[in-house]
Amino acid sequence: MSQLDKKSQGWSALFSEPMSELVQRYTASVDFDRRMWRADIDGSLAHARMLAHVGILPKDDLAAIERGMAQIAAEIESGAFEWKLALEDVHLNIEARLTQLVGDAGKRLHTGRSRNDQVATDIRLWLRGEIDAITELLVGLQRSLLDVAEKNADVVMPGYTHLQVAQPVSFGHHLLAYVEMFSRDAARMADVRHRVNQLPLGAAALAGTSYPLDREMVARSLGMEGVCQNSLDAVSDRDFAIEFTAAASLAMVHISRLSEELVLWMSQNFGYIALPDRFTTGSSIMPQKKNPDVPELARGKAGRVVGHLMGLITLMKGQPLAYNKDNQEDKEPLFDTVDTLKDTLRIFAEMMAGIEVRPAAMEAAARRGYATATDLADYLVKKGLPFRDAHETVAHAVKAAAAQGLDLSELPLETLRQFNPAIHEDVYDVLSLHGSLHARGTLGGTAPVQVRAQVARHRERLGPA
Amino acid sequence: MSQLDKKSQGWSALFSEPMSELVQRYTASVDFDRRMWRADIDGSLAHARMLAHVGILPKDDLAAIERGMAQIAAEIESGAFEWKLALEDVHLNIEARLTQLVGDAGKRLHTGRSRNDQVATDIRLWLRGEIDAITELLVGLQRSLLDVAEKNADVVMPGYTHLQVAQPVSFGHHLLAYVEMFSRDAARMADVRHRVNQLPLGAAALAGTSYPLDREMVARSLGMEGVCQNSLDAVSDRDFAIEFTAAASLAMVHISRLSEELVLWMSQNFGYIALPDRFTTGSSIMPQKKNPDVPELARGKAGRVVGHLMGLITLMKGQPLAYNKDNQEDKEPLFDTVDTLKDTLRIFAEMMAGIEVRPAAMEAAARRGYATATDLADYLVKKGLPFRDAHETVAHAVKAAAAQGLDLSELPLETLRQFNPAIHEDVYDVLSLHGSLHARGTLGGTAPVQVRAQVARHRERLGPA
Amino acid sequence: MSQLDKKSQGWSALFSEPMSELVQRYTASVDFDRRMWRADIDGSLAHARMLAHVGILPKDDLAAIERGMAQIAAEIESGAFEWKLALEDVHLNIEARLTQLVGDAGKRLHTGRSRNDQVATDIRLWLRGEIDAITELLVGLQRSLLDVAEKNADVVMPGYTHLQVAQPVSFGHHLLAYVEMFSRDAARMADVRHRVNQLPLGAAALAGTSYPLDREMVARSLGMEGVCQNSLDAVSDRDFAIEFTAAASLAMVHISRLSEELVLWMSQNFGYIALPDRFTTGSSIMPQKKNPDVPELARGKAGRVVGHLMGLITLMKGQPLAYNKDNQEDKEPLFDTVDTLKDTLRIFAEMMAGIEVRPAAMEAAARRGYATATDLADYLVKKGLPFRDAHETVAHAVKAAAAQGLDLSELPLETLRQFNPAIHEDVYDVLSLHGSLHARGTLGGTAPVQVRAQVARHRERLGPA
Amino acid sequence: MSQLDKKSQGWSALFSEPMSELVQRYTASVDFDRRMWRADIDGSLAHARMLAHVGILPKDDLAAIERGMAQIAAEIESGAFEWKLALEDVHLNIEARLTQLVGDAGKRLHTGRSRNDQVATDIRLWLRGEIDAITELLVGLQRSLLDVAEKNADVVMPGYTHLQVAQPVSFGHHLLAYVEMFSRDAARMADVRHRVNQLPLGAAALAGTSYPLDREMVARSLGMEGVCQNSLDAVSDRDFAIEFTAAASLAMVHISRLSEELVLWMSQNFGYIALPDRFTTGSSIMPQKKNPDVPELARGKAGRVVGHLMGLITLMKGQPLAYNKDNQEDKEPLFDTVDTLKDTLRIFAEMMAGIEVRPAAMEAAARRGYATATDLADYLVKKGLPFRDAHETVAHAVKAAAAQGLDLSELPLETLRQFNPAIHEDVYDVLSLHGSLHARGTLGGTAPVQVRAQVARHRERLGPA
Repeated sequence: MSQLDKKSQGWSALFSEPMSELVQRYTASVDFDRRMWRADIDGSLAHARMLAHVGILPKDDLAAIERGMAQIAAEIESGAFEWKLALEDVHLNIEARLTQLVGDAGKRLHTGRSRNDQVATDIRLWLRGEIDAITELLVGLQRSLLDVAEKNADVVMPGYTHLQVAQPVSFGHHLLAYVEMFSRDAARMADVRHRVNQLPLGAAALAGTSYPLDREMVARSLGMEGVCQNSLDAVSDRDFAIEFTAAASLAMVHISRLSEELVLWMSQNFGYIALPDRFTTGSSIMPQKKNPDVPELARGKAGRVVGHLMGLITLMKGQPLAYNKDNQEDKEPLFDTVDTLKDTLRIFAEMMAGIEVRPAAMEAAARRGYATATDLADYLVKKGLPFRDAHETVAHAVKAAAAQGLDLSELPLETLRQFNPAIHEDVYDVLSLHGSLHARGTLGGTAPVQVRAQVARHRERLGPA
Repeated sequence: MSQLDKKSQGWSALFSEPMSELVQRYTASVDFDRRMWRADIDGSLAHARMLAHVGILPKDDLAAIERGMAQIAAEIESGAFEWKLALEDVHLNIEARLTQLVGDAGKRLHTGRSRNDQVATDIRLWLRGEIDAITELLVGLQRSLLDVAEKNADVVMPGYTHLQVAQPVSFGHHLLAYVEMFSRDAARMADVRHRVNQLPLGAAALAGTSYPLDREMVARSLGMEGVCQNSLDAVSDRDFAIEFTAAASLAMVHISRLSEELVLWMSQNFGYIALPDRFTTGSSIMPQKKNPDVPELARGKAGRVVGHLMGLITLMKGQPLAYNKDNQEDKEPLFDTVDTLKDTLRIFAEMMAGIEVRPAAMEAAARRGYATATDLADYLVKKGLPFRDAHETVAHAVKAAAAQGLDLSELPLETLRQFNPAIHEDVYDVLSLHGSLHARGTLGGTAPVQVRAQVARHRERLGPA
Repeated sequence: MSQLDKKSQGWSALFSEPMSELVQRYTASVDFDRRMWRADIDGSLAHARMLAHVGILPKDDLAAIERGMAQIAAEIESGAFEWKLALEDVHLNIEARLTQLVGDAGKRLHTGRSRNDQVATDIRLWLRGEIDAITELLVGLQRSLLDVAEKNADVVMPGYTHLQVAQPVSFGHHLLAYVEMFSRDAARMADVRHRVNQLPLGAAALAGTSYPLDREMVARSLGMEGVCQNSLDAVSDRDFAIEFTAAASLAMVHISRLSEELVLWMSQNFGYIALPDRFTTGSSIMPQKKNPDVPELARGKAGRVVGHLMGLITLMKGQPLAYNKDNQEDKEPLFDTVDTLKDTLRIFAEMMAGIEVRPAAMEAAARRGYATATDLADYLVKKGLPFRDAHETVAHAVKAAAAQGLDLSELPLETLRQFNPAIHEDVYDVLSLHGSLHARGTLGGTAPVQVRAQVARHRERLGPA
Repeated sequence: MSQLDKKSQGWSALFSEPMSELVQRYTASVDFDRRMWRADIDGSLAHARMLAHVGILPKDDLAAIERGMAQIAAEIESGAFEWKLALEDVHLNIEARLTQLVGDAGKRLHTGRSRNDQVATDIRLWLRGEIDAITELLVGLQRSLLDVAEKNADVVMPGYTHLQVAQPVSFGHHLLAYVEMFSRDAARMADVRHRVNQLPLGAAALAGTSYPLDREMVARSLGMEGVCQNSLDAVSDRDFAIEFTAAASLAMVHISRLSEELVLWMSQNFGYIALPDRFTTGSSIMPQKKNPDVPELARGKAGRVVGHLMGLITLMKGQPLAYNKDNQEDKEPLFDTVDTLKDTLRIFAEMMAGIEVRPAAMEAAARRGYATATDLADYLVKKGLPFRDAHETVAHAVKAAAAQGLDLSELPLETLRQFNPAIHEDVYDVLSLHGSLHARGTLGGTAPVQVRAQVARHRERLGPA
């Protein structure tokens, strides 16, 4: 009977009693870490092949291990695999089953490695795959936003600062701001991926090993970019998990900002958009309600992911080298961060594609709030006034217009000329919403021509769909 | 067919399409909120009885509801109840089943309430019960610590500041510091319980209701201390969840401090204690290892709970009134905080009771580091030196002793007298570990007599076991 | 020359070199902790008087210390006191000056205490005072809100859930929700005050002392409620700082919620209120702008205080007993939390008193969004329909009204009766905003009569202004 | 009199009253943002030169602005510049002074820009410089660690997992783990620098501008890598500040881990190192103390920076576009993060260079705890045992040795052979600390030859000092 089978009687001969059941439940991770099973098998196979290559593992043993692992993978996929809490984690569960299936060859698999470097490898392999999936979803969300942006390049809405009407902007332009954010998120994911994609295996428990392992061969066969160069660091480093969660937090913060706006725009006080019914819910008491549950929930889920970031940092603070059991607590927050981000990106890509835009409501709102006051100031500057003086002149004009309940564009020319005689008939061009919009055509500005150019640039950047 | 049964076809007649499946999964909470089922039923029954009492609900309907709820409770307890994702949450699942069982009476239950006040009531009822359970567990842990403290009142260990040997302390005294912490945690739990134990029901969706509800009757029948006095606040307030999680975070921070010490004390560099084998684990690679997994994991779980606190605060920040869907995200962190804290307290009470104390190792360590230097300074003060001068004199003595590799108590009287002629033979009493220990007998000090007095005080405070 | 004067040459005879200047700057706290000077002097005087009372300190020395401290207080108040970085902190600065002024009596002051219990005492005394100030400011803000609430009890605005128009509510009622929040904040402050107001002095460095101190006398003379009962805990406990910061975070979260609403209400899309010009700022470029800088900044400052909470928890996580220098980092976040909260409460009390309310805009908005649909459902229930069926009937009515661009109250009776023949002429009473408002008169509801009753209850609770 | 001079009477003609003094203090930032003055001037000069280049600003005006800015820079550097709270921030202070000095030319400087894009530019320029400084300091700390690592490549200490003695490691190897961490920190700083080094200027308030600005010229002249491509995003994006603070938090977490170890190693229970006296402090009460204040304080400061990260994320969560005043709260946490990280890195580079290493204490500790048990298991594997069986065999041997109070290497050959007859005399080579150490020579392992190779690799990577 192997060590693993006897674990219920104690970890090893050194232990006078088995782990208490309470402790077993408290310390076991198999309930959540089994989702890394494929990474665990991939890592084990790469390790075994290398062991065989350098002559540590007999060829027959390798064949047995490969055969056993193929069967285990099939059992897990079909749901037939029996996960045992008493075997603590995904690693021991798979290894115990392997030994059951192939005998001593299975016992030889752990030569030159430890659970410490094994789990570090598994989590990196698993996370690398999830980063790729997230990157795809970020692309999907950007594409979805680009489509809506392009369609709405000419739609005027009030641009806000301080949630006060500031200047007219294109609704498409507004959405492109989020494309910028999500493209930065993707860039951060790409950066963290390099740091994730390094091989800890070969660090063994903490000090390296006395077997002549070929770590670079293992790295290559797993598609990794390099090998962790210090064994103590290799088994205790969870920086990548924290950095990933920080990047995910920023992405969720962006989602929370977009959600805030969707909720505002859906409110009757704005009425700028409607979400498709399939993305809304009703009320158990108020029959008239259609609530934007999805953006609200997503806004709340930003807190969830930020909480995970805080938890992971707290976990790591003040830990001495090398591996400590504290680190087992890295997995659930990481897993939940991945799930939350993926679900949210997927649902937002679909939802944004379906929003119904209401240009009339947007334009009507833009007519309140003197959105073109800056254009009048700029007009005066072009007539020779220093900007600061023009600014003050327009403040007087706005005050007068507000007193009469009129927009600047509704003031008669004579009235406008009282504020400055340089004003002529052409002023009404700059005072119109669309005039103002089209005037802001410099790089990054809100003019529709710029919006379309940016959409094209982004599409080029993202490549063919 | 009732509204609830048709939810798969759309929330109400107002909706042109059903919720998409993706959205349904994203927004449904029944997978986690069903753990509040008993609170939901209790709240519904209290509501129904009050409705009947004030004449809104016919007596027959009440009887039908009571009968239906009894059956539902039985079904849930037996596992026969079929939870449906399409019915979103625990509330609609139970209500739909009720209506199935008792017809129109079930449809009348929701009169004068909304899910907003219903969920707020459920979560308070549920949390109140958990606070009581946690309070019990905190008592249990304190009792466990008191037993070990009492047994070890006379055991001398080095007291540390800055992890440098400072002064001799009683190991029992050291453990009592944690009793103080956990007693403060219990006090905070008691404080937050008052703010939890208020009734939101009757606030309806957000504005109160036009039915002549008797909210105070409902509060009384649910054992609540009062009624939320503002309907908008009642449905949107989650302060109690944040305050509870903050209190839980502090308790877990205390656990993390105790864990840090247990890990240190288990280390070969200290060797002050051993944990029972059933609380330790071995290594997959290093055959000699016995690892203090439980305290390490608990130290890590402090991060987990702190993360939940951060998540909940982030969730609430900047939310306008009244209820927003963001708040659904309050539950999972709250549930996990409760589970983590309860499991940890339970396991620590058991583990602390089982630690093996090694007085010889503690005492040996206390002999290193000139732990009685302060006693020598105090001795000189009693001979008339100002404290600051005595302090400096002893620094010289320590320097000389260290140069010879001796403890202060090993220096001959003549040598000591070179530093100050007021030193006499009786100095060796204050330079001994136990002499130093027993000297600190003022209130809160480390003298064994004080330790025993404190143990008695705590036992008195906690009441009979 | 005393030990303190020589610190520039090394901490004591034991040190072969002075602290490096870089280290001195890194570790010194006098730049920020000197704000606790009065607490430091008060604590020292209480300690000295007790020392004299129990016969440890000669009466003359006490007189000298009292005289010296009076002069020091005067010097600090006048700005004449010279704070020295080389003396590290407020405690050593004051003690060194005292010894300069009164000689050996000053050196005797530190008998039976340590900086560890001294700083713990100072920070508690200081924080107790600040909690009292904050409590006053919370009262002030509540009073300010009560005044506005009372004046606006009859003003109807749309109550929102999910930022969708839900039901008509009184603007006064809406503001009272915040009174509830701030009253809970005050309750939390009162709770934490009890835990702050305990005396650490007498714990000395960590183990208590061999002098026969009368700690309870010191506690009484400082107005404290009790004595810390365990010396190790006394010097290392910073729970109260964390708990206070958690309470402050909740208060700031409430401010952030109110701020969010003020910003919304100021937006042209709402137009519900105007802030006085003295609380707004303009734009450097857009001449028409009046921005709600104060609520926005306050919303941002919620993050600042939450950050301090997280910093303090991280600081404490995993610290072994007893005092560690990490704890010096408790002060700046605590000080800044107090400053931020006090400034914010003060400015909000003043600002809320000055808001200009625009009832017409609120009422107009309430007319959009079918705010009285629930009232129609309740009307049908009172006619005998089960609530769930009534809900569905109204959904149909809303759909029909929306198709015609009408409010429910604008539908002719015949049309309404098509949905249910139980509808009669009296339905228009429940469909009016004010009818709906006044109908919700149960405890905690939005009816103006309830609002006034609540204002009265709060005024009673707060006592005379 | 210009607009800026009249700010004390109100922001513009639109304002009926000046900002209240309380509000002025609450909203002003000049006390802290003036540290960005040079970035502000550099940005303004680049803007002015571009304005002149494209013909918007007369050449003479440019000359006047350049002359004025030179004088202002001189005034600020000399301390002669008078900062005015009433002028809110660094930008208006400098612009007002410029207009005072050069008249209308100064008023023209603000053409085509807004404070929103100006402050975003300033903070990026400033942060870019600080990132470069931090990168240098990270290099310095790595060099310092490399020197100590190289000198101690052959020093054996116990490697720990779970703070239990695991396997012998080289002290140099242990330090190299931190070199890996700090090199990753530098890599993260390099990544975030690309995202910082983008030009917002030209975005104006939020929508771009109608002036034909050449933004790419400005970017080039400021050494920036690109231009923010969306005006709304440009003025509201603070991702870079959050990402930077996350990277700084990780660096501080690494510092906290190293600090934890330094504190442990300084403790009498370890005695592995001594810090130079100039990095330690004494106690006000205990004359024998030398406390590791610097690492403790640094460990605490990790919390401070993590708190800033949480504050910044909370700040940004849920903000709608575009600029909101909340963002002013980004500066103090960012500034303090930079200061804290720089001070800490500087002091650690100096302190680590000065640590006194005590090889005898380390080696003695490594002899406790059966650090070579894994070597015995590996020895058996090389004799043909499956690893899992070898592991169990060694557990028995350790149990037997522990019962006799002996190390494995102290058991006679006959005893060892009872556990497995394949054991021969050569077993004692693998059971020695240095034998074990040298055996772990694979890439990343702890063998001194590997340590020296890694030192060389890092030196190559860092380039000449």
